[in-house]
Amino acid sequence: MSLNQISEQRCFDGRQLRFKHQSAVLHCEMQFSVYLPPQAASQRVPALYWLSGLTCTDENFASKAGAQRIAAELGLALVIPDTSPRGEGVADDPQGSYDFGLGAGFYVNATEEPYAKHYQMYDYIVQELPALLEAELPLTPQRAISGHSMGGHGALVIGLRNSSRYRSISAFSPICHPSACPWGIKALTGYLGADPNRWQQYDAALLLAQQGSDLPILVDQGLADQFYPEQLRTETLLAAAKRSGAQAEIRLQPGYDHSYYFIASFIEQHLRFHARYLGLLAA
Amino acid sequence: MSLNQISEQRCFDGRQLRFKHQSAVLHCEMQFSVYLPPQAASQRVPALYWLSGLTCTDENFASKAGAQRIAAELGLALVIPDTSPRGEGVADDPQGSYDFGLGAGFYVNATEEPYAKHYQMYDYIVQELPALLEAELPLTPQRAISGHSMGGHGALVIGLRNSSRYRSISAFSPICHPSACPWGIKALTGYLGADPNRWQQYDAALLLAQQGSDLPILVDQGLADQFYPEQLRTETLLAAAKRSGAQAEIRLQPGYDHSYYFIASFIEQHLRFHARYLGLLAA
Repeated sequence: MSLNQISEQRCFDGRQLRFKHQSAVLHCEMQFSVYLPPQAASQRVPALYWLSGLTCTDENFASKAGAQRIAAELGLALVIPDTSPRGEGVADDPQGSYDFGLGAGFYVNATEEPYAKHYQMYDYIVQELPALLEAELPLTPQRAISGHSMGGHGALVIGLRNSSRYRSISAFSPICHPSACPWGIKALTGYLGADPNRWQQYDAALLLAQQGSDLPILVDQGLADQFYPEQLRTETLLAAAKRSGAQAEIRLQPGYDHSYYFIASFIEQHLRFHARYLGLLAA
Repeated sequence: MSLNQISEQRCFDGRQLRFKHQSAVLHCEMQFSVYLPPQAASQRVPALYWLSGLTCTDENFASKAGAQRIAAELGLALVIPDTSPRGEGVADDPQGSYDFGLGAGFYVNATEEPYAKHYQMYDYIVQELPALLEAELPLTPQRAISGHSMGGHGALVIGLRNSSRYRSISAFSPICHPSACPWGIKALTGYLGADPNRWQQYDAALLLAQQGSDLPILVDQGLADQFYPEQLRTETLLAAAKRSGAQAEIRLQPGYDHSYYFIASFIEQHLRFHARYLGLLAA
């Protein structure tokens, strides 16, 4: 068994689990959290992958979003990876900033040194983690993907580029157009180099404008978000959705900020959205 | 205005607020959190006081319990005080332990030096905070009280001793019999002196056995709790409830531990319990 369980806590009659494992893709030991709903005691269940934002680990969403209640009702597993490779040998931002390096992997496959060896979060999320979990835990291959801020960017990019691997995509407060915001320009330059042509494959607004979406999309953005609009560039995603004719609902929520209080307020709607496409609820 | 608002975040269409104020009872500046449900925009609402456990501040319950969703539905405010006096002049445990001093006020009025000046958490919770909040915020004088672990002890003791001030009492994983557990003996000795006769007024199991309860009580205790039974002594509360004939439902929940995952799993039932006695739900 390549998964080592660190902890188990009962939550809404299901199991909140934390694991560590040696990642072949990231070349380091990684931790992640999984919530298995009560239904998983007797059958395989589909999974929502949740990608967290800057500075987070696998614990923020598990402890703050209140998602287990709804997941337990629906029979949906929650898979919550960490936000970057970790460990002593993993290069961090030499400046020690919060928005690059550890806790800020941006869900890309880095090509630049000293990051290329470890910062392969795209492949980790798309390939390694689902293969491991579907072999070791009672999960079906039915997947949905969601996330917050940097993780909303990750969810949109990964979902748009891998429509056969997911049923639906959602995001809270996503970094929609990283090629044209301070967080994104810094991270994409650092991980991928200075040529913006190499950034396009990781830019949700550009991907959506170019190719549309085979999957339904739900996005919530708070209008009192301290990072809106400069870092998030939601208007570019709205324009791309309109231009492409994609099945994308992008909602601007008055009064809500960038925090987990916002996520908690709307996570039930996101889980029910995904549940419809995963066959857990009538459409 | 003696309340200074530190932050406001929208949550389930209500307001998650944080305040600071100068406490006359505690002789220091205190912070606390309040959730005002959407109904409070146009009317006064009753309040549930939540007393947190060892090492917590006013932020743990606000961010981890998922209570705002139900409070918003019911029209119930949540008042979440800190767990001890704070600040540079406030004496801490000389050994710096987690279970005495800062973050561990045990909701008593200390009589021993150097704690007596600041550690008056009982009067702060019972008197000062409600008077302040009902003057400054849209709250009715209808109150209920709940809490976790050390805060479950506080909720039971305060509710039992002030039945005219509350409508109902509940607790998660409470320290039921502090006179006879390591946490309690250490804290009560330090704050009240070595004479156990002085501890009785702060011992929920003793109070319930002696006087019964004028208020309905709901308690949940996880059977996989790492502090059960040694620190919590739930059996003494069960015996006292039985002996006194109090209207007390004390439930042992298989598989659940001492964490907020346990609280999150059952907080809805506690809020609905209190709502019935606060007149928010049909009994």
